[in-house]
This record gives sequence, structure tokens and C-alpha cells, in this order.
Amino acid sequence: MQPLVELYAIEAQLPSLKDNTGDLDRLRRAVAERFGGREPVVPFGCLPRVAGNFRRAGFVGGAVVNNLPSGPELVDFVVMPAKPLVGIALDLGTTHLEAVLVELASGRRLAEADCENGQLEFGADILSRIHYAAQPGGLAALHSAVISCVNELAADLADRAGTAVEEIRALSVSGNTAMVHFFLKFDPYHLIREPYIPLVNVPDPCRALELGLAIDPGAPVWVVPGVGSYFGGDLVSGVVASGLARGDKVSMLIDVGTNAEVIVGNREWLIACAGAAGPALEGGVVRMGMRAGPGAVARVEIDPASGGLTYQTIGGARPKGICGSGIIDLVAGLYLGRFIDIRGKFRPGRNPARFVETAEGLAFVLVDAAESADGKPVLFGQVDLDAVMRSKAAMYSILTTLVNQVGIGFDELERIYVAGAFGRHISPRQAITLGMLPDLPLAVFKPIGNSSLAGAEMVLLDGAARRECRELVRKITYLELNVNQEFMTRFSGCRFIPHTDATLFPSVPFLNGD
Amino acid sequence: MQPLVELYAIEAQLPSLKDNTGDLDRLRRAVAERFGGREPVVPFGCLPRVAGNFRRAGFVGGAVVNNLPSGPELVDFVVMPAKPLVGIALDLGTTHLEAVLVELASGRRLAEADCENGQLEFGADILSRIHYAAQPGGLAALHSAVISCVNELAADLADRAGTAVEEIRALSVSGNTAMVHFFLKFDPYHLIREPYIPLVNVPDPCRALELGLAIDPGAPVWVVPGVGSYFGGDLVSGVVASGLARGDKVSMLIDVGTNAEVIVGNREWLIACAGAAGPALEGGVVRMGMRAGPGAVARVEIDPASGGLTYQTIGGARPKGICGSGIIDLVAGLYLGRFIDIRGKFRPGRNPARFVETAEGLAFVLVDAAESADGKPVLFGQVDLDAVMRSKAAMYSILTTLVNQVGIGFDELERIYVAGAFGRHISPRQAITLGMLPDLPLAVFKPIGNSSLAGAEMVLLDGAARRECRELVRKITYLELNVNQEFMTRFSGCRFIPHTDATLFPSVPFLNGD
Repeated sequence: MQPLVELYAIEAQLPSLKDNTGDLDRLRRAVAERFGGREPVVPFGCLPRVAGNFRRAGFVGGAVVNNLPSGPELVDFVVMPAKPLVGIALDLGTTHLEAVLVELASGRRLAEADCENGQLEFGADILSRIHYAAQPGGLAALHSAVISCVNELAADLADRAGTAVEEIRALSVSGNTAMVHFFLKFDPYHLIREPYIPLVNVPDPCRALELGLAIDPGAPVWVVPGVGSYFGGDLVSGVVASGLARGDKVSMLIDVGTNAEVIVGNREWLIACAGAAGPALEGGVVRMGMRAGPGAVARVEIDPASGGLTYQTIGGARPKGICGSGIIDLVAGLYLGRFIDIRGKFRPGRNPARFVETAEGLAFVLVDAAESADGKPVLFGQVDLDAVMRSKAAMYSILTTLVNQVGIGFDELERIYVAGAFGRHISPRQAITLGMLPDLPLAVFKPIGNSSLAGAEMVLLDGAARRECRELVRKITYLELNVNQEFMTRFSGCRFIPHTDATLFPSVPFLNGD
Repeated sequence: MQPLVELYAIEAQLPSLKDNTGDLDRLRRAVAERFGGREPVVPFGCLPRVAGNFRRAGFVGGAVVNNLPSGPELVDFVVMPAKPLVGIALDLGTTHLEAVLVELASGRRLAEADCENGQLEFGADILSRIHYAAQPGGLAALHSAVISCVNELAADLADRAGTAVEEIRALSVSGNTAMVHFFLKFDPYHLIREPYIPLVNVPDPCRALELGLAIDPGAPVWVVPGVGSYFGGDLVSGVVASGLARGDKVSMLIDVGTNAEVIVGNREWLIACAGAAGPALEGGVVRMGMRAGPGAVARVEIDPASGGLTYQTIGGARPKGICGSGIIDLVAGLYLGRFIDIRGKFRPGRNPARFVETAEGLAFVLVDAAESADGKPVLFGQVDLDAVMRSKAAMYSILTTLVNQVGIGFDELERIYVAGAFGRHISPRQAITLGMLPDLPLAVFKPIGNSSLAGAEMVLLDGAARRECRELVRKITYLELNVNQEFMTRFSGCRFIPHTDATLFPSVPFLNGD
């Protein structure tokens, strides 16, 4: 498996008047025997402790070696038997950070933790943070904020696992390209300016001490490489975690966050694209939208005949708002219950009691004031519905543009992996009803959870995964949709539910007119 | 020649919507074409400026690449045509630092400078500094002191050459093992404790920023490797500068400072040793000894028949003391003029007017009070003479032990290179008279000046010299004299002038008795 950091038992010959090899030269030579004669590099900052510990240990013990793409790197020396080495895999999300602490040799998970991204105070979305970074001190503030969060997560994980934060020997990081830039303190200016070029797609690993991280100073920080400004390491992690690029048959991976990022291919070829398809499903765009947390309406059922509505909230709490899966359930139910027409416009005549007029126009009452958490009704307005219609149109257009680009049909996809909270919570059936996902047997769709974190974890534990990441980014062809005429044409073809061309969705009733 | 740092003209393809390779990935790929496909490493600390400058330059310009043993390292990007890159070669002496600023591509010397070692306030000799380093904060103080000196030298050199100190792109350093430890902030504790093992003999190059040097932060600091605690990089530099290890015939290199370090060999083999043979020739041991500076008596002639004495001082100033070459001239002259006997004892009867009694015993009056700089006579006492006798005995014992070890005679040496101030100033003829150097034709002896600095300069300019250094340290066998019985026996055989066995010195009159 070859974890990112390994312990090698070393028994060096003792120095003597007849052998005045320097301590470190002696140790490097002994370690080199484990690497086919290749001497490890010792980072300058780690040198005094490596040499000091080697001597104090009596020239016998465990060499702590980082397995880097450039070769072995010797960062510490410990007395044996030593405690198993541990490392952190981190998903660096725009709004949330999630991390796991694992034993490197066994892969055993010791603890999990997550926290809000401390950069939220500088901007809820990536775009506003990139603008903030251009102000004097802006990038430094964004960088410090995320480093502080990672340090808190690390302390939290160490605490839960009963170890010390300084004993964490490795960190693998997976995030979108902008988050990776903030994390590494790289100028993100050009990420949002044509032709949208990252400062770096494939960063060399650095060391914890170079980033001001509180874990072991010699810990390698292995950042999963990205493909471009809009297709980052989080997606590459997803590809690795899903196994998409190791299969013979063609599959697809969909990750929906603020953007929808999609990749299709197999072991031979991979093509990817991204587009703004997600915002309507996240907190912030839909007026009463929220993250999938306690009090979020996550499931909605509407009886097509009676129009009766039932819902479930996360944790069973009184409802506060609605999350992505709830929104998709709701809109699909509204369509099948004839509360909205194929163009995505409310039909208040269906049951006037469920509608109210607001300052922003007509709104559907999902939850009455009497049932809600704060005594106010949970509403879903026409504006929100319009946003969902744009998102679903964008998503389906992205998917069709992509498969069309490679000359295959949806029915040739062996599997569609659906990543993230979107994949975990939504029902593919309802997304098909909306015309968001293609009309395929439900067994084709496979939710894979937080695949950004799963990929980071594989990278931490397995040299093959690290190599796969680096090969992937060379192999993936990125299709730029911002200037793609076909995408624009398809987008306008998707403005109906399920689609302007209803024959594409044989399983969905076409409910035109009354 | 391949200087330590080189400029490579790069014309990268422009980024576009069709090619979203990251800026740095693009640059690394372009640089890799110049290295047979091998991508350069970009040190984390240099990354923002490399990428930023590359973009500002419009993706066309000069890549600044460090040629390191581990491979190419990309540290900056400049607009072309650029000023020629410059670097510093530094001799890190125990008492003095000497440096030259050179153009890396042409090898042209732009400026020279030297200064006192700022560590003198912590101890005049290496031993007392190593003890000082063991105190709390001691090593840090010694390290800061030498780094400050190097920064001052760099500023001075930049000033003289009309450039900015931040534009100095490389530093090569040659010094004894203890000085290298202080410079790199490595614990020197074990250097002086059996079995005398350095923390490291072959340090990996680090970067200026890691040492707090004021030159370009990405400048590589290439430290000439050493062989052991008592045979450092200064000697390895001397071997490289002399060409000793590139010849077919056997030659010898002698460097006398506080210790005498000697190496003998050819392209096939090399054997080295070191011993305390020098102190009598440096300021500090001989009562009126001083460095070879203005006012130092550097030449002495005594007419063997009349006993009349003439001398020369450096700079023609009034005499203040006597330097190493003056001491050797003086003692040889005193012997040939019968002022001392073969056992190295004064014979005041030869001319009582030239002797005085002092608190430390009998002393020879080299310069009368009336002629001296401070109105006091320049004296050379029996105690001083005893010290010189021990030094010359040690030196000859070292040389004979060494050649005997390899089974050759002195007459098989093609050349004897004599390094340092000792080599520059002494007359081999007088050293032979004392029995300090073997009785060989004078043409065999070749002074090579500051070969530590010369070696550092070669290392700065030429990849072959850098490779030679690293090969040398593997090839040199080090002979430990501290525990060598043969050395002890020979030492007592050297207690006469020129030697107990006068047949070894046919060219020197054996002046036993009156």
C-alpha cells in the first residue's frame, strides 16, 4: 500500500575512530539500503532533530520517511517500538471542512471531525473571497483563517483519539482549486479571469512547518492535484474514490455543490466539465434554503391525486428551512401533483390555500407557521422555483453536452456516481422527474458520499492512489462550457419539466395543460 | 562548466481556454524540456514569486535554476535580457572570512572582501566556541554571529560591484567542520568527543532563506563536504583547487592553520590525517606572535658567520610582532647562526647582547625597543622556541607517518602543495632547515594560497568540481593520529634540528656542539 509516511527499522553501524562517517550521512546511508541505494533528502528544518534523535537512540530505531513523488524524505528518527504513525485526510470545502484521523500503516480510522470554514466571514462564496484576496492583506487573512481551522480540527481529532497534535505525521488535502490556493497562500486572482488559469494545478508536497500547521513540522502536506480553475482536486479525489478511471466500461461522476462538476470516461480516456448548476440546491440561493442539518426539510411527498403533502425534517426537529434533497422532492412532487406546469410556473388554482402573495411574488406554503420552528411559515417562492429550473436545465445540459462530445448515449454508461451531500440525500427518481438526471434505471445511480474526503484518505494510505491522481490530471480533457455554443442551445431545450423533448424521459408523465 | 545557478531562456505556450495548464505546471514543463524531461522542483517559499513573475513577464523570459545534486530547482523567473547572475564563494575561516563575488556564467571576479570572524568574542579558538555552544543560547549566538558576518560581506561585495545584495543568486561555502556546524546551526558537541563524529559530513544544499541570509532567498547554499571532525570542507576544497586527486602521480597537500592537515594521493586513492602542528606559527601561542598584517616581522635573515640580523616587516611599518613565516625564518637563522643548538635551546654565549632574561625565562631580542612600533623590544623566548620545536616535530611526524602508511618515500611525491597563509609566506628552504618539511628539491613545493576559497569558487562555477567534492569524501581514507602509536614514536625522533637522524636532511648542516 505504501502510506504517505512510513517507519523503517534501522540498525546502523556504530561510529568509531575507524569510521568517522557523520551521524546524518550514516543514517542516510542506512535508509538508502531500504530504497535500492537511493539516499533520502533531509529537509533543512528537520535536520537537527533527525541527527539528534538518531544519536540519542544509540543509532538504532525507526526512520520516519515521507514517500514523495521526488523520492524519499527523512524527517525524524524514533525509538522502537514506536506508536503507530497517524495522519489526517482533509476535505477542504468552501463552507465546511471534514477530516479523519487514520493509522497510516493499517488504515484504521481513529476519529472524525468537521467544522465550518473560518473564511465564511470574508465571503460566503468563492467569488467574493477571491475578490477579498485582492485587497491588501486579504490573501493572508484568508490563508490564516483556513490554517486556523485545520489546526483546530487537528487538535480536535488528536483529542478524540487520545494522541498529541504534534504526533500527526501526515496531511492529505482535497479541495476545489480556489480553496487549495487559499490554503497554500497562492494568489487566486486569475482563477476567475479568462482564460481561468490556476497558479498551479499540481502542487509539489510541502511540509507542515512551511504552512504554519500545528502538526509535526516534518509532516508532508500532500494536496490532491486539480485539472483547472473549475475542476479541482476534490473532483480528482472523487474519480480516485469511485474507481471510475480504473474500469473498462464507461461511467460518469457527478458532483454538485455550488457548481456541478461532471466527468465521464474509463481507464482509457476521461473528459470533464463544470458549470453553474448547483446553487439553487444549496443554502443561500433559495430564500429558505439551508444546509442538510437539524430542522431542514429533507423529504417531501405530495399525493398526485389529493395534493396532500407530508414531509420529514432532519433529526425530526420542527422545520426551519429546506435543504437540497427536500427542494428536489418538493419540485418533483409539485409537478406530479399539478401545482406547477411544465414551464415551472405555479398553478395556484390547484389549491389556493397553499399559496400566499409575498413581496417577492407568489409562494408555496411548505410548512404552516403553526408547525415551524420559529412561528413563521416555510415558503418556497416562484423566484426559488425559477432558480431550480435554471439549475436543473444547466445540469442536464452539461450532462448531454458531455456525452455528446464523446459520441455516446446515456444508456452506454455503466454507472453514474453521485458525490457529496447531493448524492447522499437526493432521490434519483425525483431528479429524473425534474429532468435533472437522465432517465435511466435507478440502479445505475450510485451515491458515493464525500468522495473528496474518501480520495484524500486513499492518497494518505496508498502510493497507487497518489500515482493515480498525478496520472489522472494529465489524462483528463477539460471541456470549457463558458464558450460552448452547444451547451447554450441545449440549455434552452431544457426549460420544460422534464424536457422540451419529452421523449427523452419516457418514465416521466408529461403533464401539459389541465 | 554548469555554474551552480543558471538562467534558461524559456518561451512557454500561452494559456488559453483550450489549455488550462496551471502557470507553474506550464513553466515546469517548459523547464523540463531543458533537462531531458525532468521537471524541476520549486521550493515552497519561492513558489509565489516564480509563478507571479512568470505571468507578469508574459510567459517568456529566463528561468533561474539551481543545479543541485538532487536535480534542478526552479527559484525565480526574470525578464530577458537579464543582468548576468552573480554568486559568492566564501572561505569560512576560524579567525577570518574571505569572499569573492563572481559572475556565474563567465567566472569573472567582480569584487573581493574579507572580515574578522564575528565569533571571536565567544572564543578565539574552535574548542572554546564548541564549549560555548553547549551553553543555553550558545549555538544560536555563534550561528547569528557568523551569519551577520556573511551578510556584511555580501553587502560589501554588492556595494563594490555596484549591484544589490538581493541579486546575489548563489553562495558556496568552504570551512572547517566546526565552522560549517556553526554556520548551519548544527550541534558541534560530538566534534571534540571520541570518536569525534560530525553531525553531518555531506550537508544537502539549503537555501539562503533557511539560514537568514540577506541574499536572494532562493539562492542555494552549497557547503563543501568534509571527511570528519578534523578534516573539513576547507581541505576538500584545497584538494579540488590543487588538482591533487585528478593526477596520475602521487602528490601531497599540506594546510597549516591551528592544525596541520595533510593529504596524499592521486586519482586512484587518497589518505589524509590531521594533527596539532600549527599553533606556534599563529598569533596567540608565541608571545609576540601575530597575524601576517602590517608591522609583522615576516622575513628574518641571520648571517651565519657574523650573526648579524636583518628583517622585513609587512608594509614596511615599524615592527609590532612576528608572524608565522618570520618565526620559521628566525628559528632557522638562529640555528644556522648557532644561536640555538640542535635540541632547540638558546646558546646565549653566541652573543650575550642579543639576549635578555624575562619573567618567562631567557629571550632573544629580535627588535630593539628603539626600533619597534611601541617602544618595547620584540622578543622571542625559550618558551616560544619550545612551542616551535613541538610544532615542527609534529608536522614532520605527521608527514612521515602518512607516507609510511601508504608505503612510499618522500622522493616519490611529484609535488607538495602548501596551502594558506603558511604556504604563501614561508620559505620551504627554512622549513626544511628546521626539519619541518622533508628535504626535497625546492621546486617540489608549490604554494597555492587560499585554496579553501579557490575550491569554493570552483564549486560555484563548475558542476564537475561539485561532483568531485562529493566523490572525494567517499574516496578519502582518514587516518586518526590521536591513537596512532607510530606517530608518537616518530614525534620523539623529531626533537632535534633538523632531526635526530640527520641523514634524512642531507642539505641541512648538522651543527652539533661548538
